Amino acid sequence: MRAFANQGNRARRPRVVIVGGGFGGLYAAKGLKGAPVAITLLDRNNHHLFQPLLYQVATAGLSPEQIAAPIRSILSRQQNAEVVMAEVVGVDTQRQRVLTDRGEIPYDILVLATGSRHSYFGHEEWERFAPGLKEITDAMDVRQRILTAFEMAEVEESAEARERWLTFVLVGGGPTGVEMAGQIAEMARFTLVRDFRHIDSRSARIVLVEAGPRILPSFHPELSAAATRFLAHNGVEVRTGVKVTHIDQEGVVLETSLPATHGQGEERIYSHTVIWSAGNRASPAARWVGAPTDRMGRAKVAPDLSVPGHPEIFIIGDAAYFEQDGKPLPAVAPTAIQMGTYVAKVIRARVEGRPQPPTFRYFDKGDLATVGRHFAVFCRERGGGFPRVRLKGFIAWALWLSVHIYFLIGFANRLLVMLNWARAYFTYGRGARLIIRGVVCGQHRPSEEESAPVCR
Amino acid sequence: MRAFANQGNRARRPRVVIVGGGFGGLYAAKGLKGAPVAITLLDRNNHHLFQPLLYQVATAGLSPEQIAAPIRSILSRQQNAEVVMAEVVGVDTQRQRVLTDRGEIPYDILVLATGSRHSYFGHEEWERFAPGLKEITDAMDVRQRILTAFEMAEVEESAEARERWLTFVLVGGGPTGVEMAGQIAEMARFTLVRDFRHIDSRSARIVLVEAGPRILPSFHPELSAAATRFLAHNGVEVRTGVKVTHIDQEGVVLETSLPATHGQGEERIYSHTVIWSAGNRASPAARWVGAPTDRMGRAKVAPDLSVPGHPEIFIIGDAAYFEQDGKPLPAVAPTAIQMGTYVAKVIRARVEGRPQPPTFRYFDKGDLATVGRHFAVFCRERGGGFPRVRLKGFIAWALWLSVHIYFLIGFANRLLVMLNWARAYFTYGRGARLIIRGVVCGQHRPSEEESAPVCR
Repeated sequence: MRAFANQGNRARRPRVVIVGGGFGGLYAAKGLKGAPVAITLLDRNNHHLFQPLLYQVATAGLSPEQIAAPIRSILSRQQNAEVVMAEVVGVDTQRQRVLTDRGEIPYDILVLATGSRHSYFGHEEWERFAPGLKEITDAMDVRQRILTAFEMAEVEESAEARERWLTFVLVGGGPTGVEMAGQIAEMARFTLVRDFRHIDSRSARIVLVEAGPRILPSFHPELSAAATRFLAHNGVEVRTGVKVTHIDQEGVVLETSLPATHGQGEERIYSHTVIWSAGNRASPAARWVGAPTDRMGRAKVAPDLSVPGHPEIFIIGDAAYFEQDGKPLPAVAPTAIQMGTYVAKVIRARVEGRPQPPTFRYFDKGDLATVGRHFAVFCRERGGGFPRVRLKGFIAWALWLSVHIYFLIGFANRLLVMLNWARAYFTYGRGARLIIRGVVCGQHRPSEEESAPVCR
Repeated sequence: MRAFANQGNRARRPRVVIVGGGFGGLYAAKGLKGAPVAITLLDRNNHHLFQPLLYQVATAGLSPEQIAAPIRSILSRQQNAEVVMAEVVGVDTQRQRVLTDRGEIPYDILVLATGSRHSYFGHEEWERFAPGLKEITDAMDVRQRILTAFEMAEVEESAEARERWLTFVLVGGGPTGVEMAGQIAEMARFTLVRDFRHIDSRSARIVLVEAGPRILPSFHPELSAAATRFLAHNGVEVRTGVKVTHIDQEGVVLETSLPATHGQGEERIYSHTVIWSAGNRASPAARWVGAPTDRMGRAKVAPDLSVPGHPEIFIIGDAAYFEQDGKPLPAVAPTAIQMGTYVAKVIRARVEGRPQPPTFRYFDKGDLATVGRHFAVFCRERGGGFPRVRLKGFIAWALWLSVHIYFLIGFANRLLVMLNWARAYFTYGRGARLIIRGVVCGQHRPSEEESAPVCR
């Protein structure tokens, strides 16, 4: 592999290999700008993805191109960094080499920022019926399913079958589930309302299912309650304390775990469109390097984010488990960004022979989730010299809007996204409402006439 | 099927079924706004595509969402029209029914606007090595191939293999081939120039192959020559009088048909990225209804665009063959638009019991093709009371820009496309430079380590 051959020419510089071009990996690379190292950033995709807005792609509000940018172009002016598109399959910690589908890449220092995938709690067979949202392909898949469901309902003769196409189930009441529910509701109530002749898109049933006692569990209960009220007001059925015990092409089976609320026993919701946002599982980074893990497969890292016994290997972002003040850090973009920036400092100090910076400490800027039009929740507990803040409604929504536009990487994308949103805001339109035939593979379309292509 | 059941309710209104939501079908539907008919527009995709800009999606300048709009939303306010997403498989002209993968749809009047696909002149096996550009999936496929080729070249050790990845062959010197060649050249010379560490993207070899004696054969020879000079100046090898006799995963084999220019015999160009724009073949519309065809499969239609012997069936756009003043009409968007508009008038007159308008006559507004930055050609022969006009260079380019932005359907898309172009213009950037794993099926990647998913 050529990257290897060429790295030899820069041999005197320590070789830093970063695996993953998400927030963690990208900020680690950017943090090493100008440092006397030779960086190779590996990713199986050619783009960095602004994952917090992925649900907007899934609900046809934005195009993939608006929330993703080629990693190459982000790092094009950073002379000590090269980008290689390859899939990592393992790490040889003895010989200090990353094993990829395109050959081996030697490292002196390794940063693993490989993120997480969905976890179906041992029911991986559910994935084809209930995809989650991690990558652009996931979002495209979900978008096709949602739009196709309305198309199918429009031409369906039987009222029962129509209802199944117009029922949308979101599994998991975290920010993604809440955002998706809010977006689908808005789409059904406004965007699509004039488009069909045989169905009333407003009759769509949108069910948000959460096993725990409340949605948005990482927020204050008061904010969870406000979000629940907002969703209910906008036509979303919020079902808490309800566990999903089975998913198939007919829909989901629920088990009421809190007898008080809905009675005991099983309930089936018939739906062809189920979306999963209930659980994550770390990528196999910890396994590659033999690091100890928590039950979600995240590597338990040392206070400087290195792997115990391997000071030359760091694991950051969603792939890492790190406790602070007795609590694990949340798996969100700011955690990955701060970890990436910190690791860059550690590496820079090490190669320049300076003392290592103090151990990693996460600075919590607060937790923010948007629920729908003009409505978001924000919550920041006391600490770091800041008072407690809890916001809900329009102010939190305006905050959410500015934060997301500001942080959207791809820079020049900002204006375009803003304009797209402005248009969507005033017209309730969604410019990205395309169903692209053949593009989404593994799509599940239980129609009799045709079988869907499966290529995953 | 529900569309059928429901149409019964509007039984007294003549049922007009339009197959195809391209320019022809859409303008036919829009032309019938307010007419006392019940329109059903069928398309296998949910979107109308602004095909003249598809090459921009293929070369990562625009996102698919920017040049396509849901047919439903375009027709949402037209109460006499409904849209059904279904694939037509045939027509029963006896029983007056359209046969689709979702059931049968009865018609009183049928408009077939099903367009064309590529023709490989009997070598359909070439398609997997040399895709063409008709639908969004095609453009996404081509985009992936182009971007992936640079990625592969970057990590390739052998100079020979690298060269093959950096060689791009465009087969066919019509507007699409010329536009693609110009765009790839611009990408290689400007956009990507800082992105790679091991290759110089400017060293890419871009070959435009045309069997005839000159590129842009529908334009005046003077304009063809100007376009050739412009392309050559920008690093594109223009090879005219050269026939492609074979395509495989190693590249193309050329046969020099004009001994004078390049000597006789065979020549192989090694390339992993070959794009086809050499020939079209009409969709099977003519076959469905038993209409006479030309050798490209286009239906030879009557002067009112109906099928001889079937006054209730019209065939328009690329699927139709129509001679005017002894010459066949070009297969371009304006032809389809004018035919759609005309057919709507004929139908309206017929259902309102008025005399049919005079036979169809195409009004030629001129022929326009963009070659690259600041350079387009425009040509309009004398006729219709207008003088002859031939333009090349910046003025034609400015004209091209305004015409395309103006006609871009999707209305609100205009501002976004303009901004995207403005950004690309000033920065040479391409916001849509994403390689989406798993999204493009049937992609050909002749690497040893992995076999590409194939789902077509």
